[in-house]
Formats: sequence, C-alpha cells, structure tokens
Amino acid sequence: MKSERYNKGWEKLKEVDGSAGEKVIESLKDIAPEFADLLIEFPFGDIYSREKLDLKSREIATIATLTVMGNVTEQLKVHIHAGLNVGCTKEEIVEIIIQMSVYGGFPCALNGLFAMKEIFNNDR
Amino acid sequence: MKSERYNKGWEKLKEVDGSAGEKVIESLKDIAPEFADLLIEFPFGDIYSREKLDLKSREIATIATLTVMGNVTEQLKVHIHAGLNVGCTKEEIVEIIIQMSVYGGFPCALNGLFAMKEIFNNDR
Amino acid sequence: MKSERYNKGWEKLKEVDGSAGEKVIESLKDIAPEFADLLIEFPFGDIYSREKLDLKSREIATIATLTVMGNVTEQLKVHIHAGLNVGCTKEEIVEIIIQMSVYGGFPCALNGLFAMKEIFNNDR
Amino acid sequence: MKSERYNKGWEKLKEVDGSAGEKVIESLKDIAPEFADLLIEFPFGDIYSREKLDLKSREIATIATLTVMGNVTEQLKVHIHAGLNVGCTKEEIVEIIIQMSVYGGFPCALNGLFAMKEIFNNDR
Amino acid sequence: MKSERYNKGWEKLKEVDGSAGEKVIESLKDIAPEFADLLIEFPFGDIYSREKLDLKSREIATIATLTVMGNVTEQLKVHIHAGLNVGCTKEEIVEIIIQMSVYGGFPCALNGLFAMKEIFNNDR
Amino acid sequence: MKSERYNKGWEKLKEVDGSAGEKVIESLKDIAPEFADLLIEFPFGDIYSREKLDLKSREIATIATLTVMGNVTEQLKVHIHAGLNVGCTKEEIVEIIIQMSVYGGFPCALNGLFAMKEIFNNDR
Repeated sequence: MKSERYNKGWEKLKEVDGSAGEKVIESLKDIAPEFADLLIEFPFGDIYSREKLDLKSREIATIATLTVMGNVTEQLKVHIHAGLNVGCTKEEIVEIIIQMSVYGGFPCALNGLFAMKEIFNNDR
Repeated sequence: MKSERYNKGWEKLKEVDGSAGEKVIESLKDIAPEFADLLIEFPFGDIYSREKLDLKSREIATIATLTVMGNVTEQLKVHIHAGLNVGCTKEEIVEIIIQMSVYGGFPCALNGLFAMKEIFNNDR
Repeated sequence: MKSERYNKGWEKLKEVDGSAGEKVIESLKDIAPEFADLLIEFPFGDIYSREKLDLKSREIATIATLTVMGNVTEQLKVHIHAGLNVGCTKEEIVEIIIQMSVYGGFPCALNGLFAMKEIFNNDR
Repeated sequence: MKSERYNKGWEKLKEVDGSAGEKVIESLKDIAPEFADLLIEFPFGDIYSREKLDLKSREIATIATLTVMGNVTEQLKVHIHAGLNVGCTKEEIVEIIIQMSVYGGFPCALNGLFAMKEIFNNDR
Repeated sequence: MKSERYNKGWEKLKEVDGSAGEKVIESLKDIAPEFADLLIEFPFGDIYSREKLDLKSREIATIATLTVMGNVTEQLKVHIHAGLNVGCTKEEIVEIIIQMSVYGGFPCALNGLFAMKEIFNNDR
Repeated sequence: MKSERYNKGWEKLKEVDGSAGEKVIESLKDIAPEFADLLIEFPFGDIYSREKLDLKSREIATIATLTVMGNVTEQLKVHIHAGLNVGCTKEEIVEIIIQMSVYGGFPCALNGLFAMKEIFNNDR
C-alpha cells in the first residue's frame, strides 16, 4: 500500500500531467521502481502540493529552469505539456524560453524552442 | 544620444527595479560602459519589453533560473527585489526557490534561501 | 509533532554530521522553516536512510559531486566533515577531489582543495 | 614507443574497463590520436594509478559526478560498466544515481537511471 | 522591413557562416520567427560586428565555450564550421578542444572531438 | 627530482604567468603538494606546451571558458593576467567577456567584467 504522500503526489501529478507521469513510472519499473515512488512523493507530494504558489507559476519556473539546464530535453518537453495543461498559452511558453537567452545564453534558448517545435509537430 | 531601444529598455528596467539598474550601470562605467548599454538594450529593451508575458511571470522564470545556476548570487538578489517589485509576495518567492530543490538540487535551493535571507536582514 | 520520516532523517543526519545539521536548521528558521523539514525528510529520511549503500560510499559520491558543481562551497565543507565522520581518511578525501580534475576540470579540483584546506586550518 | 606513464595508464585502464578503452582509442584515431595518448596518460596513468584510493571508491565518485553533469551519457555508461567491473553491485550503482536527485536534481537522476537501463537491456 | 541592426547582423552572419544562419532562421519560422530576428540582431548585429576583436579570436572563444557547456552539440558544430571559415585550421580547432580537458574535464573534450569528427566524416 | 614534463611545464607556466604559478603551488603545499605537481605537468607540461596553437589563442579560449563556468573567479583573474602577459590587450579581453553574454548569459558576462575591474583597481 502506498503512503498518503504518494497518493497526494499522484493526484497532483495527474492534475499537472497524468499521462507523462504514467509513462515515467512505467519506464522505471524494471530498473528502479522505488525511485518512481520517490518521484511521486517528493516533487509532487511534498512540493507541487504546497498551496503557496499556483500551478501555472510553478510550471513557468520549471520550464525556465529546464531550458537553462539544457541537458534534460525530455523533462522539458514533459513540462511544456504540463504548462499548457495548467493554463499557460503556447505564446507564453515560447516567450519564457526566449527570455532564457538572457540568462542561459542563445544556444539553450534555441534548443528549448526546438524542443517546443517537436511537441507541436508531433501533436499535429 | 541613446537609441530608442535603450530608452525603451531603460523605462522597462525602471519599472522592474530602477535603483539596481542604476547601480549596475554605475559599476560598469570604468571597465565596460558599452556593456551597460547592451544590458539595457537587449534584456530590457528587446526582451522584457515584449508584451507576450507579464512582468510577474518573467520574474518567476528568472528567479528560478538564477537559483539553479547557483553562481550568480548578486543577480539573484537583484531579481528577488524585482520580483517583490512587480507583484510577487515574499512567500511566493520562497516557494519558487524551494521548488528548485527538485530541479537543481538541495544545495542550490539552500543558497537561494540564504540570498533571500540576506535581503530581508538588510532591509530591516 | 514531526513525521516519522523526519525523525528517521534526523537520526541519520546526526549519524552523518549532527552539528552541521543543527546549524543549517537554525539558519533557515526565520526565512523558510518548512524547507528545514524537507531537508531532513527527503535527503536524510528518504535517501541516506536507505540501506542499499553504506554511508562512506554515500559521502564519497557527494564530495565528488559537490566538488564538480563548484558553486556550493559551504555544502562541500559540510560533507568533507561528514566524510571524515563516517570513515573516510583525510588522504582519501584529498584523493577524491584530485580525481575530479579529470571530470570537472582543474579549477574545480583546485577550489575543492582550498575548501578542504580551510577546514583543516580552522580545526587546528 | 609509448611512455612509461602510458604503459602504466593502459594497464590501469584494462583493469578498470579494457574493452571500453580500446573503443575510445579506436574512435579517436582519425581525428585526434594524441588525445587518446593524453587520455591514457593523465586520467589513468597519473590519477587512477595513485594508490591512495581503491578503484571501487574511484568509480563511485565518477558515477556520481557524471550523473550530475548530465551531458555526458556515453561516459556515464562506460563508468557504470567499470563500476560493475571493480566490485560495485548493480544495486549500489542504482543507489548512487538515486542519491544524486538530492544534489543534481531529479531530471539528472532520472536520466542516469535511463542510461543504466539501456546498459542492462543491451547486455541481456 | 528589417532594422539596420538586423541588416548589419545578417551581413556579419554571412561572413561567419551564411548557410548555417539560413538553416537556423528557416527552422525557427514556424515556432518563433521573432527569435530568429533577435538572433541576428543581438549576437551578430550587436556583438560579432564590434570591431574590437577579430573574427578568428571570436570563434576560438566560442568553440572553447560550447565545448565546455557540453550540451549544445549542434551549435558547437556550427561554430567549428565558422572557425574554419574565418581562418582557424583544423589542427587549431582540435587543439582548442583538447585544451578544454583542463577546464571542463575529459568527457567534454572527448565529446567535442566526436562532434568535430562527425563534421569531417560528413564533409568527405 | 622533478620529471622532464614538470620542468617543461614549469617553463611554460613562467612564460604564461610565473608569479601566479608560484602562489598556487605555495598554497597547495600543506594540503596536496602532489596536486601542485600534476597542475604543472598536465595543463602546462602536456597541453600548453604543445606547439599547435599560440599562447594568445590559448588564453582567449581559457578566458572565455572560465567566464562562462562562472564559479571559478580566482582562476579567471589568473588567466586575465596571463592573457595580458601573452599579448591580449585589455580591450580584447573585455570584448571576449562581453561576447560570452551570448553563450553563458548576461550574469556570467557581468561577473567576468567585475573580476576584470578588480584586477585593474588592484593594479593601479
């Protein structure tokens, strides 16, 4: 049986982006199933569930960060989806990524936009 | 005479955080005054002036990023001030920094909170 | 009342480096006391408490990482102390930091050694 | 004729992971054969050959670091192999990567686990 | 109609590497055409057009940086091409990347050399 | 007695920046004297001594990289000195740092310029 934190985290993850969550948990099943639990419990159960910041603001912060980290394209795509899901428009997300040229440099911003492009090409 | 972009950037910078802007420009005067111009023109004239994202969302994105970069404490402090200036509450900024423990790790989040603490101790 | 995870984490943190833990919690009290709880609960309650890896190996991994991140000197110092506490010798820690010249470059290794030097100069 | 350091480095590299070493040297032959020599001489001849730290501890440090750097997946895979080769269990390596969620964030840990999964899927 | 900065930037980009520039602008057309303008205007119109540093020195600086960033392989390839275009020899570029083993570590240098190898294999 | 590589490295280091080298070696004496040897032997004996790239180009590459790494200010200052020593003008170094705003973002460039300013204020 899963912990209360897990259940709370799972509910929050579904609110943010349910199908991505299911895919990640599935992908961890044969290598580190316990990390799937930690991933639900800490980021979603402990952090995203806190009420002090709305989900749209949380996704703005995460999209910006993952763009600048530059080496986590798959997670950036998940959070672009999540951002759209919790109320960001496509234009706003493009704008966040463009702004990152100031802080992480042009190559990071460029790669962020290419990640976004892939999402929209696949969704069409 | 400064360019129109410079003037637009300067107006925007004042809206975001006028006194920090003046300090930075002052500090660049004897080493690279032209970089002060570029700093007004590109980040503030070209980017923050675009209308596709509100200033509060822009500062959320920037505070998150600078927390995770971890090596730009002075700029993080400037943008914590700016965030407060354009409508973030203290609680929201603390929350953004806490959330960064998920993406940049606990040491970055910890240092972000210490930067915030310094601001509030100095302002008292 | 604190959660069971908190209590487990606190016991583990004391085993690793009790006095450093107390200082960090104290330092967060006026800015983000809830983050102090998260810091005990996740890294120490959820991760360091897992039995699949001994504490000495955990500190080797952490000292290596913080050396290469390069922007978290205070946390590196805490974990150099912790490493000594759980069975690393001074020579082994120096050696881990030296090895990081291969992965994070010479400047990071150099700064790691300077952090170590500060600890030994202060402890004398 | 190769230098004594080269020969010492080559012996050490074989002890750590001989087949990976041969592949890298082969892959550098047409673009930068001298860098292949430097790679044997410095990391393996000068560093891994030092007797102050056992090879298992060295691989723990390296796996942790490469997980957090996040942009060097191929090298991480080489060192996961090397870790298994010098006495780490699969469970210990998974645990090191999981621990990195605390220092480099969840996306890095997730990508480290996916690298590990690829190795185990290919080896089957 | 494009701005004077745009035109100046475009001329400079053509001098550095015209065909790469056209490809990037083309690739941004359906996702963020305005970022294509910013990319011409700021890096090439404002920075590379300044007369205080020759283009060869600029490309040396950029190739070094992109090698160490490690997560921007496509942009590194563009600037390896650009370096050859403005007067660097193949041997000099290999040497810059090798030198980065000192500052960004061996994995970054190795990946830089692999990027270079791809260019030369494709061009043959 | 030191190795031939050491002697070659030491000569090269003196050519680049003798007094900084002596300070670093001195500072490592009580914590990791063998790392001082490695620092002379690999970066200066093995890399900077290679004849395929002139010292001015090497320092341009290093100043750019250390600016973007952002967490190694002391080493950046050493290499700004070294750059001046091997033929870069002050204006060229300022220009390299300004250019890094494109690749590492504005905060890194700003901090690079502040490091440069400190050097010129101290030297006056």
